[in-house]
Amino acid sequence: MLLKNATILTMNANRDILTNGAIAVQGNRIVALGKTSALEARYPSEESLDLGGKLIIPGLIDTHVHLAQALIRGCADDMALIQWLCERVWVLQGNFTHDDGYVSARLGIAEMLRSGTTTFLESMLAHRYGFDGIAQAVQESGIRACLAGIVMDIGTYATQTNSMHPGMIESRDTSLLGVIQMHDKWQGAANDRLHVWFGPRTPGGVTSELYREMSEIAHQRQMGITMHLAEVEADKIYLQEKFGLTPVDYAESVGLLGPRSVLVHMVWLTSAEIEKLAATGTHVSHNPSSNSKLASGVCKVPLMLERGVNVALGCDGGPSNNDYDLIREMKMAAILHKAVTLDPLIVPAETVLEMATINGARALGLDHEIGSLEVGKKADLVVIDLARLHTTPAINPVSTLVYAATGGEVDTVMVDGQIVVRQGRLLTMDEHEVMREANQHANMLYQRAGIDLKPRWPIS
Amino acid sequence: MLLKNATILTMNANRDILTNGAIAVQGNRIVALGKTSALEARYPSEESLDLGGKLIIPGLIDTHVHLAQALIRGCADDMALIQWLCERVWVLQGNFTHDDGYVSARLGIAEMLRSGTTTFLESMLAHRYGFDGIAQAVQESGIRACLAGIVMDIGTYATQTNSMHPGMIESRDTSLLGVIQMHDKWQGAANDRLHVWFGPRTPGGVTSELYREMSEIAHQRQMGITMHLAEVEADKIYLQEKFGLTPVDYAESVGLLGPRSVLVHMVWLTSAEIEKLAATGTHVSHNPSSNSKLASGVCKVPLMLERGVNVALGCDGGPSNNDYDLIREMKMAAILHKAVTLDPLIVPAETVLEMATINGARALGLDHEIGSLEVGKKADLVVIDLARLHTTPAINPVSTLVYAATGGEVDTVMVDGQIVVRQGRLLTMDEHEVMREANQHANMLYQRAGIDLKPRWPIS
Repeated sequence: MLLKNATILTMNANRDILTNGAIAVQGNRIVALGKTSALEARYPSEESLDLGGKLIIPGLIDTHVHLAQALIRGCADDMALIQWLCERVWVLQGNFTHDDGYVSARLGIAEMLRSGTTTFLESMLAHRYGFDGIAQAVQESGIRACLAGIVMDIGTYATQTNSMHPGMIESRDTSLLGVIQMHDKWQGAANDRLHVWFGPRTPGGVTSELYREMSEIAHQRQMGITMHLAEVEADKIYLQEKFGLTPVDYAESVGLLGPRSVLVHMVWLTSAEIEKLAATGTHVSHNPSSNSKLASGVCKVPLMLERGVNVALGCDGGPSNNDYDLIREMKMAAILHKAVTLDPLIVPAETVLEMATINGARALGLDHEIGSLEVGKKADLVVIDLARLHTTPAINPVSTLVYAATGGEVDTVMVDGQIVVRQGRLLTMDEHEVMREANQHANMLYQRAGIDLKPRWPIS
Repeated sequence: MLLKNATILTMNANRDILTNGAIAVQGNRIVALGKTSALEARYPSEESLDLGGKLIIPGLIDTHVHLAQALIRGCADDMALIQWLCERVWVLQGNFTHDDGYVSARLGIAEMLRSGTTTFLESMLAHRYGFDGIAQAVQESGIRACLAGIVMDIGTYATQTNSMHPGMIESRDTSLLGVIQMHDKWQGAANDRLHVWFGPRTPGGVTSELYREMSEIAHQRQMGITMHLAEVEADKIYLQEKFGLTPVDYAESVGLLGPRSVLVHMVWLTSAEIEKLAATGTHVSHNPSSNSKLASGVCKVPLMLERGVNVALGCDGGPSNNDYDLIREMKMAAILHKAVTLDPLIVPAETVLEMATINGARALGLDHEIGSLEVGKKADLVVIDLARLHTTPAINPVSTLVYAATGGEVDTVMVDGQIVVRQGRLLTMDEHEVMREANQHANMLYQRAGIDLKPRWPIS
């Protein structure tokens, strides 16, 4: 297949931009990339898609999502974190059935595909949401995913909610061995679109012994690890009081630093910790909307970039953002740091586009396969239609994409050589069915959990 | 006309929310509002629009835009303010023709209507952009506007760019008398959809004498005044050095405080100044995306709200935001202050919706006519379709609107009783013609100005 007559942001090492460009795809790979005229001559009989000047970018990579939170979008807005977690998020998640897990995953995946995300890293996936069902949802949708299964052996998670669902308590065995089983079963499935990672809870939920054991297994199996760390100041204080260590030093002490680790949020760090992340090749997933909405603070992204840390982007979840639109997230990443540093030059549009593409691929250990549009790489790409009022004129495509566009401008999405969105319509799922299902399951879930999400204003 | 089967956020004094609601409109006014069944019985023969459960909110009010900057969207991203202004914005604006002013206004107005803004306050409208043409664009589009014409008598503005267009220099006479003429000509036009205000430049461009003279005339004519103030720290330092006054004290000294003044940005203020704003009933237009992108700083909105200042919202312009989508701006306003104060409870969704509706109406002196949906008020309203993936489930309509939606979900817009957008399509302008014109004029403008807006990456 030939995608032609497009402006292509390749995101290759040279960051070449091609006008009047075309991409030839065979199977699941990019086999040629160049001027439309040259590729038309080379592949005369190929089926082609005339993009009429639209923009092609590499598929976006969201390095931090919680699929199970799509169904509970907006469940805890404008609340203190402890109530957000203990009175809403955990209570609702504690009432999830396997079906809810599947329905929520479908909703989140559908939203991501429609807004240009082709790969995501799911964090702390609890087994009781139905790992198999969620893996199934990934397969069916056509998206690419790293599913990080939860690992924990301290019961704080369960104690909040186990009165209704005692089966939801994860232990060392159910969680650690559960992830290993899932790795055996799903790693490399769906033509290698599906990878299985470890997604341990934060230090409050995991003993140092279990972290070390898990890190050792991850090393043997070459599995990725992703963990929330230093999201709020309390995380830092906890580690200081309990272990006398900073978050990064604690992570190092239990084997959690290195190029297979994606540490998420990372707001409360010192310069020395940031240098250690750079030195060890540990990746950071930056979630600016979530950190802002939950009042966690502002991650020191400019310093991380300056010191050479690989920073990728993440949307987080339905109660903390509340969308899974990485294009909107790029704008937030670009403008938030300017506001707090008073420096209009930092974190420019080009840098956030790197964060959402090639840096994300690097974080997932997949930069040899995805994250840029180059011959030999997998065909994960997004076509964006900037012929909208709010993106006109689109003189510089990079800054127009970052500062003016939203996921609503996504026209076509290809993952692994398969077109999954065309002219803004999902081809692999019935969008209305996904919404209908989600509304139905959400209503039942709120009823089961006894939570009435009333507006604060009188409703009649 | 009867708009029926909707959830209505009335934004009345009680902030009532109506489910299964309907609104009856006669001429340009709301004549009834209640349950659909009751209104159907009362107006059986009325033409009706079944909204099938969609959301109706008051028309959004953008209290700070520059129409002439729509055409130069993205002209100066990731640049220091002085270059942003002197090498890009002023150079391009200095090369505007009257036609460019009209084309840019059409683009900005079309984007606003499509994203739910029914009223805007245009700031520092230079006469050389063609005040008449822009007033004409407002008339034709069906939007409601307060056009604040520029007032200035110090030549810094012109000196940057007058080599090419000497005619663009505004003086005391051309600016002050120009606005008065426009007030005589246009005030109350288009069935009172059009008002004319004073839009003086910041203190660097206006003498204290002229401010006082203008304030006196504004008082006599009951005209509004809007001015940028304390946007960057340099503004504050300038006033301290030149007059020994804080920005608010200086504004007071030249007659610029009071309920007919909308002061814009207001980032660099002390608590005492904020108290003076509250005491004098002076309104603030908060522009969080612009202040962030231009690295101006973060306005102390929580303190302003606490002290009783009326805070409204603004998108600012194409090079500083870069969109004119007030729904996206609401999210930014809601999350930015949480990030910098570490308080997740401040500036909740309800408060930013007030800022974008009733507070905006109050700032424009129009809260007896617009800003809420009540019997007797003008029929300015927006229908929003939350049946999208990224707004599902939409359990609490207020927080779904603020935290998950964008202007892309706007389905229908009515201004002054006239439907101007229906099913996401502009009825009063040809959207493709607006974009075609804008692209053509932007290309010619960049050529005339000798500015090549190349991406920073190699392009071929």
